[in-house]
Amino acid sequence: MNRPPEPTLPLSDRGLAYGDGLFETVLVRDGTPLLWSEHLARLLKGCRVLDLPPPRTEALASALAGAGPGLGVLKLVYTRGSGGRGYAPPASASPRLEAVWSSFAPDQQRWAAGVRVRRCRLRLARQPVLAGIKHLARLENVLARAEWRDPAIAEGLLEDDRGQLVEATAMNVFFLARGAEQVSTPSLDQCGVAGTLRAALLEQGAVVEAPLLADELSSCEAVWLGNSVQGVWPVARLDDSEGQPQHGWELNDVHRAFQRRAHRLLGYAGAD
Amino acid sequence: MNRPPEPTLPLSDRGLAYGDGLFETVLVRDGTPLLWSEHLARLLKGCRVLDLPPPRTEALASALAGAGPGLGVLKLVYTRGSGGRGYAPPASASPRLEAVWSSFAPDQQRWAAGVRVRRCRLRLARQPVLAGIKHLARLENVLARAEWRDPAIAEGLLEDDRGQLVEATAMNVFFLARGAEQVSTPSLDQCGVAGTLRAALLEQGAVVEAPLLADELSSCEAVWLGNSVQGVWPVARLDDSEGQPQHGWELNDVHRAFQRRAHRLLGYAGAD
Repeated sequence: MNRPPEPTLPLSDRGLAYGDGLFETVLVRDGTPLLWSEHLARLLKGCRVLDLPPPRTEALASALAGAGPGLGVLKLVYTRGSGGRGYAPPASASPRLEAVWSSFAPDQQRWAAGVRVRRCRLRLARQPVLAGIKHLARLENVLARAEWRDPAIAEGLLEDDRGQLVEATAMNVFFLARGAEQVSTPSLDQCGVAGTLRAALLEQGAVVEAPLLADELSSCEAVWLGNSVQGVWPVARLDDSEGQPQHGWELNDVHRAFQRRAHRLLGYAGAD
Repeated sequence: MNRPPEPTLPLSDRGLAYGDGLFETVLVRDGTPLLWSEHLARLLKGCRVLDLPPPRTEALASALAGAGPGLGVLKLVYTRGSGGRGYAPPASASPRLEAVWSSFAPDQQRWAAGVRVRRCRLRLARQPVLAGIKHLARLENVLARAEWRDPAIAEGLLEDDRGQLVEATAMNVFFLARGAEQVSTPSLDQCGVAGTLRAALLEQGAVVEAPLLADELSSCEAVWLGNSVQGVWPVARLDDSEGQPQHGWELNDVHRAFQRRAHRLLGYAGAD
């Protein structure tokens, strides 16, 4: 492999100094990005929120062209660049767009058998201005993900300070409430990252936004985690934040049907 | 000037990727850091919160030795380094410590005449786990500071989602409530950065922690902003978040006495 050297950024870059920037992790198959319009839409929404000029189309095309063969993940990092006085952004920003590609294989075992997840102790703070966008200031996600090291735990569920379910540390949450007809996902108007797989499923009408208290997870018919890189993991077991078993689900046709629908968006096979 | 080249960090550094790190901006006079024990205490507290190994004493000494002559600011950036899987920190981190020095002169006009400040529209989210430490995920401060460009406005005041006064975008707030005997500063157990000048003043008993609704600022006898680099600015005029005048203060002996006391900690002269 003739891998290009890793890009570097100066210490003065505001992405490093303050988390002043955005990122996207894009699944790319044989050079073709999946859910690209959703990734681009989120990136542009982030630019509006942060008042950043959008990246140039040619720069994005050039970044995408750096994807390797087969299945991989292209991570795009878009920062405000250097400059400004302290927190004050420069009047005219010179943003930096960097990209790094890595080959990737989804965890088909997790597709098939489902995953064990735990509730995190950390509660997400509610900051509606930043909710939904994929900015670089993700220290809450890091702290939440650091709550466990057991590799048998695939993800951690995050709730806000009111106990409302929000997301997993790096995935969105989908659930079928008892007696409900449609798969739901929490609205992310207070905190959380609005994933691109979630956006595409909402767009298709495959899921709707609905609130759920984290305490009510056990009463759901089915729970899934999903993102545009990993696909969809059915949740087979839920632990509480102390690691004690809280609930289990037998995977069934409902689980598989939703997974198949989501996987079609990513060109992934089902798990059955 | 034979200035060393600016340090660079790889794109994979977690400080850039997630805001997973800490920083300090230290006033240095002729090679001697001011309030160093307070800076070190905050840095070590941040390491405990983020579960980072503390920087090695020799590395810190070497960074301090890089300070130039006269008065300047040494910015230390301490990140978790590269590695880990996504948000999951590496089991054994290899943190990076970088330092950059710049010469500095405080704004004596602001010391003397006081400053005009405005209330920010952005409300700080409450995240008690991260409150007080100077982590790299400071996007709220950037967005708040971006609310105005008029150089006549020296700072913006931030409140939380309950309307409690917290801080300014890059300084702590001190106030003398009507009829009060002691200067107060908001407790920072929900959000905000606990400045080192604030810490030293608390330690001396020169200020106490007390809550204040931002709506009650106008009723205060005196309000000041301060940090360990700029010193203390008396607030002479308060604008609301639309830029409309809300209140004004005549600077008096009370203002000067508190400013002198704080400035002694930084080796700064008073302004009178």
